[in-house]
Amino acid sequence: MRRLKIAVTLGVVVAATISGSAQAPRGKDLQKPLVLASQGSFFVGGETKALPPGRGGAPGGDSTVNQMYVQYQIPPGGDRHLPVVMVHGCCLSSKTWETTPDGRMGWDEYFVRRDRPVYLADQVSRARSGFDASTMNAVKAGTTPPSELPAIIWANHQIAWTVFRFGPAYGTAFPDGQFPIEAVGELYKQMIPDLNAQLRSPNPTWTNMAALAVRLEGAILMGHSESGVFPQQAALIDPSAIRGMISIEQPCPVLTDAQIATLAKIPTLVMFGDHLGDVKGGPANWADSLATCEKYVERVKAAGGDAEMMHLPKMGIRGNSHMLMQDRNSLDLADLIVTWIDRHVEARRQTRR
Amino acid sequence: MRRLKIAVTLGVVVAATISGSAQAPRGKDLQKPLVLASQGSFFVGGETKALPPGRGGAPGGDSTVNQMYVQYQIPPGGDRHLPVVMVHGCCLSSKTWETTPDGRMGWDEYFVRRDRPVYLADQVSRARSGFDASTMNAVKAGTTPPSELPAIIWANHQIAWTVFRFGPAYGTAFPDGQFPIEAVGELYKQMIPDLNAQLRSPNPTWTNMAALAVRLEGAILMGHSESGVFPQQAALIDPSAIRGMISIEQPCPVLTDAQIATLAKIPTLVMFGDHLGDVKGGPANWADSLATCEKYVERVKAAGGDAEMMHLPKMGIRGNSHMLMQDRNSLDLADLIVTWIDRHVEARRQTRR
Repeated sequence: MRRLKIAVTLGVVVAATISGSAQAPRGKDLQKPLVLASQGSFFVGGETKALPPGRGGAPGGDSTVNQMYVQYQIPPGGDRHLPVVMVHGCCLSSKTWETTPDGRMGWDEYFVRRDRPVYLADQVSRARSGFDASTMNAVKAGTTPPSELPAIIWANHQIAWTVFRFGPAYGTAFPDGQFPIEAVGELYKQMIPDLNAQLRSPNPTWTNMAALAVRLEGAILMGHSESGVFPQQAALIDPSAIRGMISIEQPCPVLTDAQIATLAKIPTLVMFGDHLGDVKGGPANWADSLATCEKYVERVKAAGGDAEMMHLPKMGIRGNSHMLMQDRNSLDLADLIVTWIDRHVEARRQTRR
Repeated sequence: MRRLKIAVTLGVVVAATISGSAQAPRGKDLQKPLVLASQGSFFVGGETKALPPGRGGAPGGDSTVNQMYVQYQIPPGGDRHLPVVMVHGCCLSSKTWETTPDGRMGWDEYFVRRDRPVYLADQVSRARSGFDASTMNAVKAGTTPPSELPAIIWANHQIAWTVFRFGPAYGTAFPDGQFPIEAVGELYKQMIPDLNAQLRSPNPTWTNMAALAVRLEGAILMGHSESGVFPQQAALIDPSAIRGMISIEQPCPVLTDAQIATLAKIPTLVMFGDHLGDVKGGPANWADSLATCEKYVERVKAAGGDAEMMHLPKMGIRGNSHMLMQDRNSLDLADLIVTWIDRHVEARRQTRR
């Protein structure tokens, strides 16, 4: 318990020192009415796919596929700051960023209260973006073999507990864990089928993220886990309107020098939580992921880029899980990100004006 | 054009007369900042399903199924009015109620600006509520025959045009149609696979809607099309906290006298648009649907209940499609509903206090 208290205190101190308490609302300030200049939702991308007449709920005709649903909120004076686009990870939806499992404010609203326009995107083939059901209907109709069905990833409780690093083994929590483990049942409800396996390459979500940045005339892209490198993938398609990239807890791919040169023009933040090597077995190896991203950050720096690795335990912030936007200290971490944005992206923007 | 103008004018006059212009914001008033007492999201229902180890993305373990995702916004002083729960129809998500295809304010925000707490629910097995992927994974793994796959309804452009009554045949619009047909491509992007066929009976969305009303200590339930009778289905499971039922464009089922007696205790509004018999062929017969609901309303009245049928063309409001919450006169229709709520539900509540 003593270790936990020190970690929490350090986290608060670090966040408060960096952000300044005036800009970082807490307690009663978070209960003040929220004022929005505007809000709404729309789609980015999408194309028409002609389907032949068939059985099993698939009448012939045109369907729209590969569209990406986006929900946004803009605070008063929101044009003073760049929009932040948040994209969720595997087996999850934009719920990731909203009210936490234990009922605290999500990053979606908190970033708005920190004066940032916020855009939440449901990945193509997930949640309100829908998915291409034609293969499933063809398999049901007997015109396509079952092996053609997508390999759907539907993370169960056991997988989530260990991959999201709530503890060393299912049912056992880390003593200093920041995830609100008493509400883990609410996190389980957020886990929905992931059909990305049936998407074409490049993933339309990447294309749509780049197009969204263009539509917004400049945006900061944030990804998590499965989508952690989506900002980079989007930038490799069209970097023109991507002003910053925030990658949270993902393996970093090996890139060519030309790709690194492209990405090095955009300020980059990578964030990892704690206990990366403390879960044995399972499909994820977070210590390896950190190592690949440390290499990526070094390569971007060597290419003259502005890249920063925030490995939280090295900053004295301990116990963070993979779902760090839902952890008990989630707002402190949000403050770290807002401060990074102001110093590395907005400052650059001001200079250019 | 003259007929259209008269219809629009009449619609505005009816809405303005009933609602009073002070309460019905239009034009610049709708661009004023939106003030919220609070917002967020949560799940209702959900249960654990144990799955055996298998292949195809289905590791053994526990998954959560039948949960319903709910997103809410509460205006300042929102406890003066009953919450309105909006549930979308077939092949759609809660996007139904948000920003219209042509970019106008959706009912979600408009009802908040009319001082109502608003709750948007994604139906169980749809959008952010996720779905049970175990059968698909078992079919892919070869342990279940393809015939066991759900009959997924994925409405294509041709189906939507006629079933949603944008015109008499695909590509031809009604001259007086209220749907913003120039933006129909944006509506197509909202249409996502509907897996309700694999839900158990009673549909968990009904149970969850009744439970949500209880959680809110009283709520008005609104359904549309596929979900048009979900308020009634929820009330037949647990009527205790359902204070009003709003059913938009659906076939009404034949109910027993005992069921009618239960439903007659809750004020009921049914709304239908125009051109019900003007589309030939196709899976929907809206003129028949209206007839079944007229019978339903009469039976409720005969049982001493408070039920009202708003068949819009009979009120001088012409050209409305099936997606009337997205039609050009959508806010006028919202005002009709708000006024009905005040007179038939809130007034009753005040009296009881």
